[in-house]
Amino acid sequence: MTSTALLTDHYELTMLQAALRSGAAGRRCVFEVFARRLPDGRRYGVVAGTGRLLRDLADFRFGEAEIERLRGAGVVDEDTLAYLAAYRFSGSIHGYAEGECYFPGSPLLVVEGTFAEAVLLETLVLSVLNHDSAVAAASSRMTGAAEGRPCIEMGSRRTHEDAAVAAARAAYVTGFAATSNLEAGREFGVPTTGTSAHAFTLLHDSEREAFEAQVASLGKGTTLLVDTYDVATAVRTAVEVAGPELGAVRLDSGDLLAQAREVRRQLDGLGATGTRIVVTSDLDEHAIAALAAAPVDAYGVGTSLVTGSGAPTAGLVYKLVAREDANGEIVGVAKKSKDKATVAGRKWALRRRNAAGIAEAEVIGVGEPPANDGDDRPLLVELVRDGEVVGATTLEQARARHEQSRAELPARALQLSRGEPAIPTVYEA
Amino acid sequence: MTSTALLTDHYELTMLQAALRSGAAGRRCVFEVFARRLPDGRRYGVVAGTGRLLRDLADFRFGEAEIERLRGAGVVDEDTLAYLAAYRFSGSIHGYAEGECYFPGSPLLVVEGTFAEAVLLETLVLSVLNHDSAVAAASSRMTGAAEGRPCIEMGSRRTHEDAAVAAARAAYVTGFAATSNLEAGREFGVPTTGTSAHAFTLLHDSEREAFEAQVASLGKGTTLLVDTYDVATAVRTAVEVAGPELGAVRLDSGDLLAQAREVRRQLDGLGATGTRIVVTSDLDEHAIAALAAAPVDAYGVGTSLVTGSGAPTAGLVYKLVAREDANGEIVGVAKKSKDKATVAGRKWALRRRNAAGIAEAEVIGVGEPPANDGDDRPLLVELVRDGEVVGATTLEQARARHEQSRAELPARALQLSRGEPAIPTVYEA
Repeated sequence: MTSTALLTDHYELTMLQAALRSGAAGRRCVFEVFARRLPDGRRYGVVAGTGRLLRDLADFRFGEAEIERLRGAGVVDEDTLAYLAAYRFSGSIHGYAEGECYFPGSPLLVVEGTFAEAVLLETLVLSVLNHDSAVAAASSRMTGAAEGRPCIEMGSRRTHEDAAVAAARAAYVTGFAATSNLEAGREFGVPTTGTSAHAFTLLHDSEREAFEAQVASLGKGTTLLVDTYDVATAVRTAVEVAGPELGAVRLDSGDLLAQAREVRRQLDGLGATGTRIVVTSDLDEHAIAALAAAPVDAYGVGTSLVTGSGAPTAGLVYKLVAREDANGEIVGVAKKSKDKATVAGRKWALRRRNAAGIAEAEVIGVGEPPANDGDDRPLLVELVRDGEVVGATTLEQARARHEQSRAELPARALQLSRGEPAIPTVYEA
Repeated sequence: MTSTALLTDHYELTMLQAALRSGAAGRRCVFEVFARRLPDGRRYGVVAGTGRLLRDLADFRFGEAEIERLRGAGVVDEDTLAYLAAYRFSGSIHGYAEGECYFPGSPLLVVEGTFAEAVLLETLVLSVLNHDSAVAAASSRMTGAAEGRPCIEMGSRRTHEDAAVAAARAAYVTGFAATSNLEAGREFGVPTTGTSAHAFTLLHDSEREAFEAQVASLGKGTTLLVDTYDVATAVRTAVEVAGPELGAVRLDSGDLLAQAREVRRQLDGLGATGTRIVVTSDLDEHAIAALAAAPVDAYGVGTSLVTGSGAPTAGLVYKLVAREDANGEIVGVAKKSKDKATVAGRKWALRRRNAAGIAEAEVIGVGEPPANDGDDRPLLVELVRDGEVVGATTLEQARARHEQSRAELPARALQLSRGEPAIPTVYEA
């Protein structure tokens, strides 16, 4: 599969067919992506996936194979197939820069085009942003809790094989130092790293032979896994084998706080004062925070990262907020469904900051944005103009954007306890 | 990307390098996939993804592009690259058939080969099985709760775009009737279906015009979305537009139980006694069960399905349980890590059933399996022999396997409340 066009819900195409028939398909529309709320207790969200989305947009074409499939399955009629065969998005997209923090109602993406061309993008846009932003929101809490100690992403095995690559990328946006995922290294340039597994120790006739084999091949700077049998014995063996130049030891089970302290004492006693301690084993942001006082040098995080640490989807929606009427005027629209109402009209958004540069509110409005008073920071950037990507950024830029955006939030944003959004969302007329 | 080989953790390759150097890489090994426990409160697990895995195995090759990347990034040395360039799995794999129910300790996959060839598969095997089995475990509870009413998968937008395709497939294995995901239709033959979104109604100048457009294009059998403005008004309009032949109406917000009853009365009063009611809106297995007494004809399930309804990963692990020793004998091995100990030796597994055919225990042992007494059902089937896939099944076979396997469990397995595994896992000497 090279086209991304069928990563789409069936109903986008049948709605297109009906709208082509009624003539409404050509009406200019504005769709917006936003979260009605943050996951329970979270204090901020993080936009991630924008870079992947802009890349996938280019592959969103209905080629012969896709058309043939849709025809064979009887999904839509021939007029609609003809439209799809010629489809390319020719509208404009503005959005929050990748890495930006967000709050309930923030217009993360503003997609403008005809109904036909904009509605087709709904599923792909949401899939990419919902997944990557869910991971980023969790991983940002982890790097926040780690307070500068490196975090390593190693959750590939706990999630879909392709989602794993995207998760490694999203974690990097929020400050993770590296990933175990080799494809994320190839596809996105995320640094990759690895230690060793229990299987490697068990493969050899003794733990010592395993350590010798690893050091012989990978050098003294390697990381030895020391909890296959008895930790104290393993640490002693490790330093005997590699000497005090041993790079690191990894702990993957048990009481990490107590063990890290014990292992640090033991390593220091053996003269291996420079040998680092890497901890893994179902860590999440809370476990990382609880290890702040322990002599830990790096955190390896798996399951909780790729599953969004309790919030595996960001809950973003893609809603029609304005469209052309019979007179050619753009009018705001909003559904009135119980418990799912939306706000009509194309939005602007600012991060209101005080004189010290600390964020005070997410200010959202419809119509002309107010003149910038110098402290407020406009949040929407141009991503796509007339169908051409104009707002692509590098992964390093997204990473820097996240670091700046998070640093600007009030200190309460980094508290891990369940709370309200760190700043209120304010709608201005 | 066509090769799946880099969907792999960095350390699998560095362990390979060290084992090639030590000579242990060629030792025959047995790795097993199992769950230490089910997700909290779950009564059974469901194996899914086997078919995808067997397909991906064929693409697990280190081609020129992969070798070049690994060399450029300095991941492993030239000897290891040479091994990888020639790599193809030549061992054997047995496993639980796709769709089979499982319990803590069940040996879901038994991979036999040299250390080198088997260790490399760890990440991909776990990614595929952890994701798909997590979805299947949740979706099986949903079809169980629906008691024969059709369930439609529509969660693509809430998860990674490729994970969405796999999720649709896993849901189908457990009895879902259809998916919204067009790629799942193309790639796996899952039936696709769709209704309409609020955007389609809002696009038109009135709800009536939207309904007229949809019926004109998609026929009277279509499903009209009736909660954009006022439900009672919309239902009346819908029947006026389509007549009593209207296929279905969809409710996507509010109190679904009360609304379904009200809408049913209204439809019947209008003579639309054959018009079905489809409900959506953050349904999970509990919400489905709570609607059992409501006049609902189909459930659309999104977020909770693709996120495993609270358990987004199955927590499966891939552990070395036996390997060749210096004398060429296969010996059981097991790590002793605190809280993560494993059971040594290659396993067999049976579902013990009583005379009525009801499952009583998951019986697991090491060594020769006992002679079959007629009621017990052996669980391991041959999937790969000497590197060739011999156990591929169709998706329909996996679906049938799941239906039979679930039907054989004691009735308590289908209770949705938090509980113990429906049958105990018994280790026999």
